[in-house]
Amino acid sequence: MNEARRRRLAMKAAQAAGVNGLLVTHPADVRYLSGFTGSSAALVLAGARAALFTDGRYRTQAKAETSGLRVVVEQKAAALLAVEWLAEAGVARCGFDSTHTSVATLDSLRAVLPAGKRRGFFVGLEGLVAKLRQVKDSDEIGRMRRAASLGCALFEEVLQHIVPGIPESEVAAQLEFMARMAGAEAMSFETIVASGERSALPHGKASAAKLPKRGFCTMDFGVVLEGYCSDMTRTVHLGKPSQRELDVYHSVLEAQEAAVEIVAPGVTCGEVDEAARSVLRSARLDKYFSHSTGHGVGLEIHEGPRVASKQKQVLEPGMVITIEPGVYLPGEFGIRIEDTMLVTASGGEVLTAASPKVWMEL
Amino acid sequence: MNEARRRRLAMKAAQAAGVNGLLVTHPADVRYLSGFTGSSAALVLAGARAALFTDGRYRTQAKAETSGLRVVVEQKAAALLAVEWLAEAGVARCGFDSTHTSVATLDSLRAVLPAGKRRGFFVGLEGLVAKLRQVKDSDEIGRMRRAASLGCALFEEVLQHIVPGIPESEVAAQLEFMARMAGAEAMSFETIVASGERSALPHGKASAAKLPKRGFCTMDFGVVLEGYCSDMTRTVHLGKPSQRELDVYHSVLEAQEAAVEIVAPGVTCGEVDEAARSVLRSARLDKYFSHSTGHGVGLEIHEGPRVASKQKQVLEPGMVITIEPGVYLPGEFGIRIEDTMLVTASGGEVLTAASPKVWMEL
Repeated sequence: MNEARRRRLAMKAAQAAGVNGLLVTHPADVRYLSGFTGSSAALVLAGARAALFTDGRYRTQAKAETSGLRVVVEQKAAALLAVEWLAEAGVARCGFDSTHTSVATLDSLRAVLPAGKRRGFFVGLEGLVAKLRQVKDSDEIGRMRRAASLGCALFEEVLQHIVPGIPESEVAAQLEFMARMAGAEAMSFETIVASGERSALPHGKASAAKLPKRGFCTMDFGVVLEGYCSDMTRTVHLGKPSQRELDVYHSVLEAQEAAVEIVAPGVTCGEVDEAARSVLRSARLDKYFSHSTGHGVGLEIHEGPRVASKQKQVLEPGMVITIEPGVYLPGEFGIRIEDTMLVTASGGEVLTAASPKVWMEL
Repeated sequence: MNEARRRRLAMKAAQAAGVNGLLVTHPADVRYLSGFTGSSAALVLAGARAALFTDGRYRTQAKAETSGLRVVVEQKAAALLAVEWLAEAGVARCGFDSTHTSVATLDSLRAVLPAGKRRGFFVGLEGLVAKLRQVKDSDEIGRMRRAASLGCALFEEVLQHIVPGIPESEVAAQLEFMARMAGAEAMSFETIVASGERSALPHGKASAAKLPKRGFCTMDFGVVLEGYCSDMTRTVHLGKPSQRELDVYHSVLEAQEAAVEIVAPGVTCGEVDEAARSVLRSARLDKYFSHSTGHGVGLEIHEGPRVASKQKQVLEPGMVITIEPGVYLPGEFGIRIEDTMLVTASGGEVLTAASPKVWMEL
């Protein structure tokens, strides 16, 4: 089981961080380390021992999905029982994820401990499991390939619905229906269909606005397949474009391809961002590129690493990231082009390559 | 604008809690107090002043959706700028939501302040805005009525797809497609379609399993309409039931109706839970009712109040809650029946009444 191996790596990282126990409550982290797919549980690790605490809703499911650990089902809050278990297991210092644990939750966890044990018991570790999750193993890479392939197939299919006068929400409906029928468990985020002037909204969720006779339509969407997220964006044009629309499109495409080109182990995330940004700078469009170039993706749609300006983090084989520069001209139009890429031993592989990024006029 | 009124109430509650400024970062709270629907922003209140900090992705949208407050768009993390604003606005003690602020975020916010000001500046307030949101105003009640009505209409429509041999995921796909085409912005949670033995999983997301010739099919779903969530569950039966299936169904229905019946201002949430639970206890089924009776619903699918055993919180007019007892017999079958209810001045009104809860055999 991959999960048992991941738990060993997590425990090793925890020990390196100076703790002898680990409390994991963020659902994606719990799933990564145990296989449990429910929305609420606490996983605890102490040396080679592991236990999963959840509530009655998940009694059957938790036992079916996990192996090599104890499953405890109780009505009482899972995290509180988990702390009792940790204390009984002889843990003296317990790591927890300070980025996914609220101030109020930490207070309630501390209150479970005897007063004399509280000080120094909990040690905030920022994203310890998240860091492990950045580098995908072969099982995960297989799942992400299949999710990306499904995304590409759906894009080809949805093109028939890109017709002037159709509401954006109907395009999204068709896309999501096809995704479900093809076996997607969910969409990985709210589908973006932004057309005409709305394409200048980088996060323009599908609205009641109707597709124009002439203008861009940006689609940014992803599916969840076998637990893993796909993510891709294509911008197509309805009707005849202006020269300016063509020019800006090709600048964005050039920027996107420049970033794709330099992805390789040892390159920093900041260098990847700069590869895209510098192309737009030359075209005097960089001030309309108002977000970062990309992000990691996996069990969650937004994971590490951040592919953003000045980020010093170095790419490693097995990381999966998006490359998605865009240009947004308020009141006019916007364009974004996005692929998901796997960092390989020697460079990068575009997982969403099945959908070409050339100018597409419908 | 309702938002301006809500901001005044929030500031008043903050002052009552001993602070003279408020930092709001939970997206649903930001939306409630400002109208901004993006996924990332920080709203700050100091006396009658208000400002919203967000990033470049939301430049156009943030200005279009809000009024009566300053909108600041910067690449820098919104919450950090917000803290600078608070300090400059003369805030000495600032409330923040300890249930939605991570330990790591609080550390980074503190670090923005001059060292001499850090101590005592941030005061953790558990769910200050969440408490206001429990009681819906008339605008919100209108939206929730429309969302609930759409949910009922969709249930009627999806019945035609409840056919032996159809995968659960296809039932979900049809339901979600119809929801989108009818104008839903999203589903309010992952659609549950759990059939046959899987109906014994309280949170059985729609899977590839095919609907049986004989057995139950539980559908638990909701739409987001005008920002507000609907939530309802119906369990139907395919083919001829056994006497036991009929008996258990009627026990769950009786439990659900008993809880619906006693909803009124002044009644505690624990009393509502007990109304359902005691019916199942009489039928010796209470140990198979493994979750609480319900929860508040609104901008988010799970809000306060918790309708659970021993909860002392008192219902107030304007609260919107679910009533959803269930019985889950592992390896056999499960049944859950859920309505969404508005607490009125004199009692309760079922918002999902358009879909009858009688035994339905398909």
